[in-house]
Amino acid sequence: MTTTMISEYGELDATALAGLVRRGEVSSLELLEEAIRRLEQVNGELNAVIYKMYDHARAAAAKNNRSGPFAGVPFLMKDFVAEMAGFPLNEGSRFLEPYVPTRDSEVVRRFTEAGLITFGKTNLPEFAIGVTTEPQWRGATHNPWDLTRTPGGSSGGAAAAVAARIVPAAHGNDVGGSIRIPASACGLVGLKPSRGRTSQAPYYGDILAGFFAEHVLTRSVRDCAGLLDVAAGPVLGDPYQAPAPKRSYNDEVDHEPGPLRIGFSTMTPLGDELHGECKQAIEKTAALLDSLGHVVSEAAPVFDAMALWSKYTTLLASLTAWRLGDWSRRLGREATETDIEPFVWAFAERGRALRAQDYLLAMQDVQVQVRALSAFYETYDLWLTTTLGQPPVALGTLVYAGDPFELRRRMAGFSPYTYLANASGQPAISLPLYWSSEGLPIGLHFTARMGEEDVLLRLASQLERACPWADRRPDVCAG
Amino acid sequence: MTTTMISEYGELDATALAGLVRRGEVSSLELLEEAIRRLEQVNGELNAVIYKMYDHARAAAAKNNRSGPFAGVPFLMKDFVAEMAGFPLNEGSRFLEPYVPTRDSEVVRRFTEAGLITFGKTNLPEFAIGVTTEPQWRGATHNPWDLTRTPGGSSGGAAAAVAARIVPAAHGNDVGGSIRIPASACGLVGLKPSRGRTSQAPYYGDILAGFFAEHVLTRSVRDCAGLLDVAAGPVLGDPYQAPAPKRSYNDEVDHEPGPLRIGFSTMTPLGDELHGECKQAIEKTAALLDSLGHVVSEAAPVFDAMALWSKYTTLLASLTAWRLGDWSRRLGREATETDIEPFVWAFAERGRALRAQDYLLAMQDVQVQVRALSAFYETYDLWLTTTLGQPPVALGTLVYAGDPFELRRRMAGFSPYTYLANASGQPAISLPLYWSSEGLPIGLHFTARMGEEDVLLRLASQLERACPWADRRPDVCAG
Repeated sequence: MTTTMISEYGELDATALAGLVRRGEVSSLELLEEAIRRLEQVNGELNAVIYKMYDHARAAAAKNNRSGPFAGVPFLMKDFVAEMAGFPLNEGSRFLEPYVPTRDSEVVRRFTEAGLITFGKTNLPEFAIGVTTEPQWRGATHNPWDLTRTPGGSSGGAAAAVAARIVPAAHGNDVGGSIRIPASACGLVGLKPSRGRTSQAPYYGDILAGFFAEHVLTRSVRDCAGLLDVAAGPVLGDPYQAPAPKRSYNDEVDHEPGPLRIGFSTMTPLGDELHGECKQAIEKTAALLDSLGHVVSEAAPVFDAMALWSKYTTLLASLTAWRLGDWSRRLGREATETDIEPFVWAFAERGRALRAQDYLLAMQDVQVQVRALSAFYETYDLWLTTTLGQPPVALGTLVYAGDPFELRRRMAGFSPYTYLANASGQPAISLPLYWSSEGLPIGLHFTARMGEEDVLLRLASQLERACPWADRRPDVCAG
Repeated sequence: MTTTMISEYGELDATALAGLVRRGEVSSLELLEEAIRRLEQVNGELNAVIYKMYDHARAAAAKNNRSGPFAGVPFLMKDFVAEMAGFPLNEGSRFLEPYVPTRDSEVVRRFTEAGLITFGKTNLPEFAIGVTTEPQWRGATHNPWDLTRTPGGSSGGAAAAVAARIVPAAHGNDVGGSIRIPASACGLVGLKPSRGRTSQAPYYGDILAGFFAEHVLTRSVRDCAGLLDVAAGPVLGDPYQAPAPKRSYNDEVDHEPGPLRIGFSTMTPLGDELHGECKQAIEKTAALLDSLGHVVSEAAPVFDAMALWSKYTTLLASLTAWRLGDWSRRLGREATETDIEPFVWAFAERGRALRAQDYLLAMQDVQVQVRALSAFYETYDLWLTTTLGQPPVALGTLVYAGDPFELRRRMAGFSPYTYLANASGQPAISLPLYWSSEGLPIGLHFTARMGEEDVLLRLASQLERACPWADRRPDVCAG
């Protein structure tokens, strides 16, 4: 790779970098060394990457395999659920030390088969529970756009690394907004796929009650689409699967979305006040969509938001108790209060007090509210909101103060919409279409019908052309 | 309808009867009166139908609407989960008295829209928990092939009514075998569709942890297929949906299955001894399949069957507790020991003692075993067994003796395979391909990959032609 090309690394997306490798214009190893250089340059400030796998990555890159669609592109994995054989998995918790899986999770297998070169693991809150990335064990990840602010969570390490241009794309996963929240806070593209789109083989059937989805954070829409082609698709034994796509997601990027019926709202379901600049972001995006020929009107799903949120919280408490129970069983030792951060421990305690029947009644109630809110999608193709209720807040804001439900409630104020798509299983995307007067990213959030990632990606691509963000650079940016 | 035609009612399937109506050769009302006459003739012996809706049905039939694919065909609904606005739902339990739903369940809406004329509801064990149909409240349903024997359960009333030729098809649903077990015991076709194939709107998202599926019991394969075209398909707000079919199921019936790789086994997962005639049934069917050009070999899925069964039982206990909790909440009064049959009460008590975390760990364990057993379907298209471990047993055999898990274990001996498809979400069908030396039906059970009802229906149709059963008549048969 020429020096000019190396200097362009930070401007290129994964699709472009893979093209360079495929055409022999650069080697996998050259890309990897550039990514490592960038990581070493800025990670001290960001704390985005918490585990380095340079030897493994160099050995993989040295093969210079050009066969996969993303062959030779440097990549980072979030240290949650996705297990890499031979490398420690911690899920943000010191309780897991030392757990070393013996098999690759399906998503790891697919990203590896696609040719991505994983050279590190990214930071997250303990067990990925949270809308910020401030674990006690590994310390906070800082937002490249303002180091005093949260990068969002739980895939906050991934988002900071992609925003700071260490890598063009990084793995994330999403149980209540964990891909979309950091995408919004760090000015990236973050898609949560439909329920059942990505498999949790071989360790799990589904995990976390079907609220969980695997995918990536990227700077370009086409990377989001191309990597979904890699990650998507069922495995025998999956408990259910998302509707099959009509064509490759990569192909969607080149197709016009056609006129879509889009409802937008500047109210939040639980009645939290939306930040003024978030309201502006929605209204400006609605006007842009109108100018692009879409049918845009002010409208929102109608459902009992407090019922959904409170029952969803009941489920998450149960699932947190399960997560500790699962790891206690796998590790052969019971988790104790000293192993676990106070918020997670207290939340799990609430979960441990719940009966199976309480869990099942809460799931029934969530599903009934999902039926109610789904009626919206008989009239509208998409629901437009912001991803977050405000621009990224200061680190230290969304921290535990002694009542786990009180923190959960504040989290819902920060991220008022994202968990709805986890509850319903619908796909949703955060797009970096707006920046605050302080220069902070404000993501716009689109929710589509179950299985309609194609609609989201066609629209996202149209908006990327109409309102490009590729040239925006954060304060802390490798180069 | 001429007298000759009326006398043929019992020989015709729903597809044929609908054809007569469509061509104006018979009216809906004539068919209905014939069905009512037959019901009144044999129901005293069978106790198949527990609630009559003659006025409602006569009013519907009098319209003589010929538009739906099954317009004018008399039909019966199982009194479980599927709610008909304005008619009591009891789920086999006196605890529900008097509950009258105000909305139709989606499956009811679809069957009605297809033109079926529902004129009664069929018997089931309390809350459909059981492999026989012997509720204390409504009394046992008797098997038309031998009145001293069980018709199977839980859709035993439906099966007895179809076998005795009161109706050509009746609704059933299946949580652990409840369509296939009575289909086997009564010499019928019974398909449990894939997870997510049928919707539980509007009352539920999914129900019973996704183990539940709606469908029918029929005498012909084409009725099973045509009615699946009616029942199948997602509703907005469903938590997940089965893979979309490539064409209508009705069309599958006319297509040859092509050579399929079929593994068969005469061992049961839990090691229960299979009845000698069941073994013969499997071996004879394997030979028939071989003669039809399929690739047949002795093979079975490999998994920890005791782990799967015991954890599945844990889940069912939790779900039974939930069912009582759900009804207590809906009815505004707590279920007590005097409201509920001893087995169900004791089983629910076990479930009430389980924590949310126990439920979630058990679900994880079931899903891990499902992953293991699914590996079989990488090599084989279908798994062939019998549906039951023995011909239908005497009424009074599978009854509660003080320990709910002990009865569950005996149930698993009677139905050693069926619940596996509920645990995995795979489609499975019972076909009446064999009769015992005593003249009792022995159903053959085929399990396919998730979403592959098409494969099951093509094969079923081929076997129906190769080994027809339409002329077999039970001891008690209306006419």
